[in-house]
Amino acid sequence: MSPWKAAQPGDPVTAIDTPALVLNLDAFERNLQRMMDAIQGHPVRLRAHAKSHKCPEIARRQVALGAVGICCQKVSEAAVFVEAGIHDVLVTNQVVGAHKLRHLANLARRARMGVLVDDAQQVADLAQAAREQGVCIDVYVEIDVGGKRCGVQPGASVAHLARQIANHASLRFAGLQCYHGPAQHRRTPAERIEAIASATDAARMSRDLILADGLAVERITGAGTGSFLLERDSGVFNEIQAGSYIFMDRDYGDNQPGPNDVPFEHALFVRTGVLSHTAPTRAVVDAGLKASATDSGMPTVWQRPELKYVKAADDHGVLEMPADTSLGLGDVLMLVPGHCDPTVNLYDELVCVRGERVEALWPVAARGALL
Amino acid sequence: MSPWKAAQPGDPVTAIDTPALVLNLDAFERNLQRMMDAIQGHPVRLRAHAKSHKCPEIARRQVALGAVGICCQKVSEAAVFVEAGIHDVLVTNQVVGAHKLRHLANLARRARMGVLVDDAQQVADLAQAAREQGVCIDVYVEIDVGGKRCGVQPGASVAHLARQIANHASLRFAGLQCYHGPAQHRRTPAERIEAIASATDAARMSRDLILADGLAVERITGAGTGSFLLERDSGVFNEIQAGSYIFMDRDYGDNQPGPNDVPFEHALFVRTGVLSHTAPTRAVVDAGLKASATDSGMPTVWQRPELKYVKAADDHGVLEMPADTSLGLGDVLMLVPGHCDPTVNLYDELVCVRGERVEALWPVAARGALL
Repeated sequence: MSPWKAAQPGDPVTAIDTPALVLNLDAFERNLQRMMDAIQGHPVRLRAHAKSHKCPEIARRQVALGAVGICCQKVSEAAVFVEAGIHDVLVTNQVVGAHKLRHLANLARRARMGVLVDDAQQVADLAQAAREQGVCIDVYVEIDVGGKRCGVQPGASVAHLARQIANHASLRFAGLQCYHGPAQHRRTPAERIEAIASATDAARMSRDLILADGLAVERITGAGTGSFLLERDSGVFNEIQAGSYIFMDRDYGDNQPGPNDVPFEHALFVRTGVLSHTAPTRAVVDAGLKASATDSGMPTVWQRPELKYVKAADDHGVLEMPADTSLGLGDVLMLVPGHCDPTVNLYDELVCVRGERVEALWPVAARGALL
Repeated sequence: MSPWKAAQPGDPVTAIDTPALVLNLDAFERNLQRMMDAIQGHPVRLRAHAKSHKCPEIARRQVALGAVGICCQKVSEAAVFVEAGIHDVLVTNQVVGAHKLRHLANLARRARMGVLVDDAQQVADLAQAAREQGVCIDVYVEIDVGGKRCGVQPGASVAHLARQIANHASLRFAGLQCYHGPAQHRRTPAERIEAIASATDAARMSRDLILADGLAVERITGAGTGSFLLERDSGVFNEIQAGSYIFMDRDYGDNQPGPNDVPFEHALFVRTGVLSHTAPTRAVVDAGLKASATDSGMPTVWQRPELKYVKAADDHGVLEMPADTSLGLGDVLMLVPGHCDPTVNLYDELVCVRGERVEALWPVAARGALL
C-alpha cells in the first residue's frame, strides 16, 4: 500500500492527491435512504451486498437504516464484517474445502451465518463442519434462474437438496437463492422484466415443490440494483441483495431506466490528474486499470462529456477530446468507474467528502479478502 | 485483506487455500537468470520494471543478479522500494503536482531517483522541488516512439527539453525514455521488428540532435519483455526495462516467438478450486476478476487445455469443457493470468513454492501504491 494517504480528514477537497477513490457522502446517504424508501411497506427486506464496498463503516450504516445484515462472496470477507460487529451474514456462494468450512463454522459461533449449496456433497460437508464446532448454519439452495453459473435447475433437484439439508441437525434449511446476475445489466426495462419474470417462475415452482414435501421456505432471496423493484413486486421474493445502489457506476448508468426506477446517483468517483498532454486531441491521466477497473468497460469523465477515456494501461488512462478543449497539466477530473465492485477492491480506503471538505477516510477493510 | 493467509512456509503445496497467487520459485529463478544471460556481453544493462511485481524481495534478487536498479510507475510505489533498500529507482512516468514532487524530491535524499518529462512546465516544477530539498534528480525526456500515450515527438522538441533540463543545477539530464508499449504484444516477430526499428530511428535521430547541441546523452532506456532483444541489438539503446519476464502471462504467451527469443517460463499462477459443477459442460472456480485480472483477456488453465475459462465475474470464474471431462468439486486448477501486473496487484502476498513445499510468503508491499 502507499506509505502515505491521498488526504486526511479536514483537508479541502482540492488537496486530495490523485488517484484517489472518493465517496460523495451526500449522494451516498441519499442512495442509502432511497433504497429503504423503495422497499418500505413491501414484503421484502434488504440484505445489502457487501462485495461492492468491502467496508465495515458502510455495512454498519446499512444495518442502522434497516438492512437485516449483509451478503459476502467469500468466507474471509465475511470474517472481516463479523469482526466489525455485523451479526447476520450470508455468503452468497458455495463454500468448498475443509479449511474454508472450518472458518465458516467458526464464524457461526459469533454471528448468524448463511451459505449456498448446489450439490449434495456440499450439504454433507457443511453439516459435518457445523457439527464439529457445535453450531447451526443457515443453508440456501441456489437455483440457476438464468445466470448459467452456479445453482441447480429449478424443480425436483431443488426440493431434493432442501430435504437433504433439513435432515441435518447442524443445518437449517433457510430458503432459496434466486439471483439473476445477467438481468442486472440488460439495457431495456422490457428485457429485465422478462428475465425476472422467468426467475420468479422458477423460484415459485421450486418453492411449491418444497412446500408439498412438507418443508417451510422462509426466505426467497436474490435481486440486484438493476432489477430489485421487479423482485420486490414479484409476490415470491422476500429479500433483496442489492449492493451497487450505494455507489452506482458507468455500467449501471448505461441501463435504460424503467418508469418507476429509483434514481440512484453516482456517489463513487476516481479522482485523477492530467500528467501528460502532448497532442491537441489527447491527454493522459494518472488513473489506469490499477485505479479504475475496466472489466465492464472504460470509465466516463464526470460532467466533461467532451473528454472520452478511451484506453487504460496499468497506470495511465488515455483521454481523447476535440482539439480546442481546455485541459492542462495537473487539471483534476472525476471518473465514474465502469464497475464499482472491483474498483473499490483496488483501494485501501475511501476518501469521504462532504461539500468542500474531506470528512473521513473509511478503510476498505475486506479488500483482497479472497479466501 | 484476509484475516488469514492461504498458506504458511513449510506447508505442502496441496494445503494452499484458494484462490492464491503462487510463484514457482524454480521457474522464476530460471527466468531471472535467463534475462541476465541474454544481456551478458551486450552494451545494455537491466533496470527491471517493478510495477510487475511490487515486491521488494523480488527487486532485491534482480539487483543481486546485476540489475542496476528498478523502474516504478508511481512515486508512492518507488517509496516502498527505497524504504526496502533499493537505491536506484526510475519513475517511468511524468510526475505532476506539488505533493508528489515533494515526495519525489524527498526520496532523492536517500536514493538515486529518475523521472520522465514531456513538457517544459514539468521541468520547471521538478527543478524547484529538487532545489527546495537540496537534491539532484535524474531527468529523462520521454519520446513518443509509437505508443501514442505520453512523450514528445522525436526531433527538435526532444533536444529543446533536454537543454531546459540541463539549464537547472538541481536536475541532471540523464537521457531518453523510448518505450514502445504496443510493440510488446504485437503477435508476430516481423511486427515487433518493424515497431522497434521505428523506435530506434526516433531515438537515434533525437539523440543526434542533442549531441549536436553539445549535451551528452548518457542513457537511452526502454524495451519490455516482448521486444528487449531488439533494443539490445539496436546499437542505440543501452538500458532494458523489462518486467514481466520473471512471471510471464497468457498475453505474452500468445506472442509468436522469434527464432532467438528467450524461452521465459510461466512462473506465476492463480491457484483456484472448483466450487460448483452443476452442468456436464460447465464448472465454476473460486477465482474471478478480483483474483485474476481480465484486462488482457481471460486466463488459461495450466496443462488442462480441455478446460476453457470463458467468463469472469467478481468472484466466480466460469469454465467450459467437454461433457466427459473429469473434474470434481474441490479439484484444484492452476490459472495462467491474462496479465501478470494487475493480477499481482490484487494480492497481499506471493505464495512461493519449490517442488512440493511452500518455501516463503513474499509481501506484495507496493500493492495499491497509486499515488
